[in-house]
Amino acid sequence: MNSVVTDAHEVHFGAVAKAALQQYLRNSSYSKIFVLVDEMTEACCLGVLREFVGCNFDGVFCIKPGEQYKNIESCVSVWEGLSDFGGDRKSVLINLGGGVVTDLGGFVASTFKRGIDFINIPTTLLAMVDASLGGKTGVDLGSLKNQVGVINQPKMVLIVSEFLRTLEARQITSGTAEMFKHGLIADKTYWEALRQSTDFSDESHIRQSVHIKNQVVAQDPTEQHVRKKLNFGHTLGHAIESYFLEQPEKETLLHGEAIAIGMILEAFLSHKLTGLSMLEVQEIKSSLLVHFEKVDFSKQDIEIILDLLKHDKKNAHGNINFVLLESIGNAQIDVKVPNELFVDAFAYYKES
Amino acid sequence: MNSVVTDAHEVHFGAVAKAALQQYLRNSSYSKIFVLVDEMTEACCLGVLREFVGCNFDGVFCIKPGEQYKNIESCVSVWEGLSDFGGDRKSVLINLGGGVVTDLGGFVASTFKRGIDFINIPTTLLAMVDASLGGKTGVDLGSLKNQVGVINQPKMVLIVSEFLRTLEARQITSGTAEMFKHGLIADKTYWEALRQSTDFSDESHIRQSVHIKNQVVAQDPTEQHVRKKLNFGHTLGHAIESYFLEQPEKETLLHGEAIAIGMILEAFLSHKLTGLSMLEVQEIKSSLLVHFEKVDFSKQDIEIILDLLKHDKKNAHGNINFVLLESIGNAQIDVKVPNELFVDAFAYYKES
Repeated sequence: MNSVVTDAHEVHFGAVAKAALQQYLRNSSYSKIFVLVDEMTEACCLGVLREFVGCNFDGVFCIKPGEQYKNIESCVSVWEGLSDFGGDRKSVLINLGGGVVTDLGGFVASTFKRGIDFINIPTTLLAMVDASLGGKTGVDLGSLKNQVGVINQPKMVLIVSEFLRTLEARQITSGTAEMFKHGLIADKTYWEALRQSTDFSDESHIRQSVHIKNQVVAQDPTEQHVRKKLNFGHTLGHAIESYFLEQPEKETLLHGEAIAIGMILEAFLSHKLTGLSMLEVQEIKSSLLVHFEKVDFSKQDIEIILDLLKHDKKNAHGNINFVLLESIGNAQIDVKVPNELFVDAFAYYKES
Repeated sequence: MNSVVTDAHEVHFGAVAKAALQQYLRNSSYSKIFVLVDEMTEACCLGVLREFVGCNFDGVFCIKPGEQYKNIESCVSVWEGLSDFGGDRKSVLINLGGGVVTDLGGFVASTFKRGIDFINIPTTLLAMVDASLGGKTGVDLGSLKNQVGVINQPKMVLIVSEFLRTLEARQITSGTAEMFKHGLIADKTYWEALRQSTDFSDESHIRQSVHIKNQVVAQDPTEQHVRKKLNFGHTLGHAIESYFLEQPEKETLLHGEAIAIGMILEAFLSHKLTGLSMLEVQEIKSSLLVHFEKVDFSKQDIEIILDLLKHDKKNAHGNINFVLLESIGNAQIDVKVPNELFVDAFAYYKES
């Protein structure tokens, strides 16, 4: 496959990725090459990367897997590791893992000695089509997602779909939520293709998602306007994800699972406020529920989730701004939603 | 006095500063105004700032004073405070304090929800002429100074010399080290003026230091080349400061006190390597020792300090790069120093 090169960063696919990485590391005069993994990618992916690069690393840092370890304590352990292994300003960090590793590793690199280069090699579908791209880095603060971070682009993103073979089906499905989102906000044809697809890890799908995300990010890297479209489904989705994260008795929802619910809720809000037809709302709901099992929400669950909303980082001035759809493929940013609609949205989600 | 406006940020002095801040806050549509202080500036300076601004703040966060609290734990407390008080992306943080407050507050603001605006109001001479300017933000990691941070400019820096009245003489003297440095690297006339001065908190001196620093930073904000000149005295100075910080039985050296020693040592290295005349080395040593009492270093002290050197963030590729002087007013960057000269430099410092 070809490569996607934007102002933001280079994205290389498949066999090209291997050559691109080798050439890049050879041509750059990095003093030291470090790798960040989690316990899963250390076991499943690090060996592949070693073959890939054909050289030894100066240090490999390993964090525990899972969103609950995407925190400042994990950052401290990696910052200390970089110091202990003699990392300097000319070092590079390769983040090999899912969204937790690329988000956290990007933040650690962006802040170590006021910023060293980093390269993302996503190993989950979610990270390939979303987290590893666009330069949003960061960690959670308690249950509040991505409260601490910076926007800083990786030097390079490498998408090697063979890593997906190491993933459980649930992880693959989670990744599709962001792909469906790309269709919903920007490309109806892609949405249709995904609805009919049975293989989401097909490189042509991944490539289309990367293309859409990069196009949006290149127009607005710091999220002043059009980039906000990528938050469709995330305003409510993040609050739902945070809530499940801090309820030890509840099963954790994967990011994509929470975003899928968020998209159904926000599709309903779009019908109420930005003219999305009820037919399209139904199409969105039924298409997503094919892949994402319905989750039960009690009245109390919903109350707490709506409380968490006000902490979401996009809620400037205490008003809650949403990205809503005008139609499938067209999104509108900065829509204020009256509070009373949230409960109706959850009621619609629950309806069979 | 006039104001200094560069691409980097606006710096306003004295009475103009008050009007500038009021006008800026009125014209910007910040959702919330937060203030960061330490226990000293909360007691001595916050009341003045309240009068200054003429409005209430949405939250005041207080950290313990001193370099030992310039760490990630303090950042976490401020990030959590910002979250708890409903800070969002349109909030602004005013850092009111010395270099610890402006460095840490700048880092916290630059990373809270991926970056909110901040304003620096330095209350120490050191922060007025150095730390609050130029956008270097960050915190220490253990005893390693500024290991974690970003480069990000404040929206505005306000220099109000009445805050200096709250300072002890030792703090004022510490601040002069960076002023002497500005003369040494860029302006012999200013160096001469400082040598003959008895009042370092005179606004004309502060203004000249701000001017020199801003000129250098504007040419090279991310420290790729000319900005490195500002590190004169800091390569050894930082190692000395770190060493004293981690020796509980030793009295803590203030930043400027460590830098003054670093400048004498590096002046000696400049004589050996970049042609600084011995007459000028002596002039530097004697001028600084008027203000900075000589510190005792044992053989073992020196060994550990030289070990710490290799962790200094500027030591790309394991080579130790110094900024050295060709003459007073002219500096050269990226000079490699043979290890054997360090011990001679300390011997020269010890000589009476």
